Amino acid sequence: MTIDYLYHLGLDSGMNLQGMFGDVRLVIMGGSKERALMIARQLTTDNTTLPKPIGRTDRYHIYKVGSCLSVSHGMGAPSISILLHELYKLLFVYAKTEAEFVRIGTSGGIGIEPGTVVITTESVNERNEAKQDLCILGRLVSRPTYLSPELIDKLYNISTSLAIPCRKGKTMSCNDFYESQARMDGAICNYTKEDREEYLNRLAGYGVLNIEMEGVAFAAFCFEKKIKCCMITTVLLNRLNGDQVKAELSMIGALQVLLRYVEESMTRSKEDH
Amino acid sequence: MTIDYLYHLGLDSGMNLQGMFGDVRLVIMGGSKERALMIARQLTTDNTTLPKPIGRTDRYHIYKVGSCLSVSHGMGAPSISILLHELYKLLFVYAKTEAEFVRIGTSGGIGIEPGTVVITTESVNERNEAKQDLCILGRLVSRPTYLSPELIDKLYNISTSLAIPCRKGKTMSCNDFYESQARMDGAICNYTKEDREEYLNRLAGYGVLNIEMEGVAFAAFCFEKKIKCCMITTVLLNRLNGDQVKAELSMIGALQVLLRYVEESMTRSKEDH
Repeated sequence: MTIDYLYHLGLDSGMNLQGMFGDVRLVIMGGSKERALMIARQLTTDNTTLPKPIGRTDRYHIYKVGSCLSVSHGMGAPSISILLHELYKLLFVYAKTEAEFVRIGTSGGIGIEPGTVVITTESVNERNEAKQDLCILGRLVSRPTYLSPELIDKLYNISTSLAIPCRKGKTMSCNDFYESQARMDGAICNYTKEDREEYLNRLAGYGVLNIEMEGVAFAAFCFEKKIKCCMITTVLLNRLNGDQVKAELSMIGALQVLLRYVEESMTRSKEDH
Repeated sequence: MTIDYLYHLGLDSGMNLQGMFGDVRLVIMGGSKERALMIARQLTTDNTTLPKPIGRTDRYHIYKVGSCLSVSHGMGAPSISILLHELYKLLFVYAKTEAEFVRIGTSGGIGIEPGTVVITTESVNERNEAKQDLCILGRLVSRPTYLSPELIDKLYNISTSLAIPCRKGKTMSCNDFYESQARMDGAICNYTKEDREEYLNRLAGYGVLNIEMEGVAFAAFCFEKKIKCCMITTVLLNRLNGDQVKAELSMIGALQVLLRYVEESMTRSKEDH
């Protein structure tokens, strides 16, 4: 293979990827392109110029601000999985750097109030197992869903110091927004309100604090490649009280914690030099 | 529930959805926002104005041209699944119309040459089963992956009449672009070139013509809701010869067939009136 095309990023190994990305230390991943841009703007000290995405923008948006990347991953495990494969090759193989990966987003809480920040200690699948099941060459392959205790503690301490309401606990990942998350307001709903309540209470009993759609794939990939990683989300609604997401509530709490973490890391990194 | 928020579309039942979408008869779904726009432009006879997306644009882009919608679905089953739930409610429930759903895209071929159009007769999962497995409320639910024989025949006849190279056969859906599709160029590859070849040849033996990432979810949803549907893709590469997608080859063949189908359907629909 002479040139390696990172197809979905629109970058290839024929470019000076080490020059472009060799200083990256932290990758922040969020769902939509709007979030990736918003985070990039928050990271920028220069408010006069709008950050510009690097590479193709039909699948993902990648912004670089200093030693941070802000990247959109789309919705669901398959979408974030493609990004992880190509970002790993981009940074760890071609740019010859090592970076931490953080997923930031919003989620549905279970028994916790909107606005609360959740830092994931364990990323579990729809059966409360801390693993990702993949079908590779027709065979089942299971991978543990690792998250870094060190990063979890750092983010938790920051949220405490900022007095932002925060919980540490299990996050469940689903492959669907409606049925797998026991919503009553999807186009298909073959269960009753009582089934739904029984299920959500069962999840609460397992210690699941919130539900989203990418965590298991994210954590399993990072475990396999030994990347330091963590997940932080703001809860948009308490699923024990309802299903509907009415408006794009801000993920402000999680973002404040993360921005403080970036600030502290950069200071530490400068002191190291 | 007084107002139903179709959260990821940015539309709600408080709007005049019947007025906005009541005449929709065909929904064309493709992966990226660029494709959705490109298809919308192809459908437009008026070349002077650029079609504008309707609703929110951070997750999906929806364009309306006459009685057709052109919509982007993102990558992977979870992403298209959210769209299907919300589109169904939008069209069949609130706009009180009935529409056919067509997925158009690109795919990796198995033993067929780049540029060939594949019309899916059977949408199979990574184990060559024509079903979707979902985990709903902790239990496994399997749904058949139905596609409409009538639409398959119509599209196949059109491609023959246009002399576009076309095959009918099985399409496999994967939840990952790299490992599940037996690529050697992902960040993780724990199998050999021989394993890869053995697997792809096994798929060829099953009658699998191509691989993509949304078909099983698309077909299973349409089966459950009794929506007429089909899938048509252009093959970008022959996976028996390699893994890398070097450039965005055009999906022109599949698009030509579909545009002719739209033309014929619209004529037929006018004659019916």
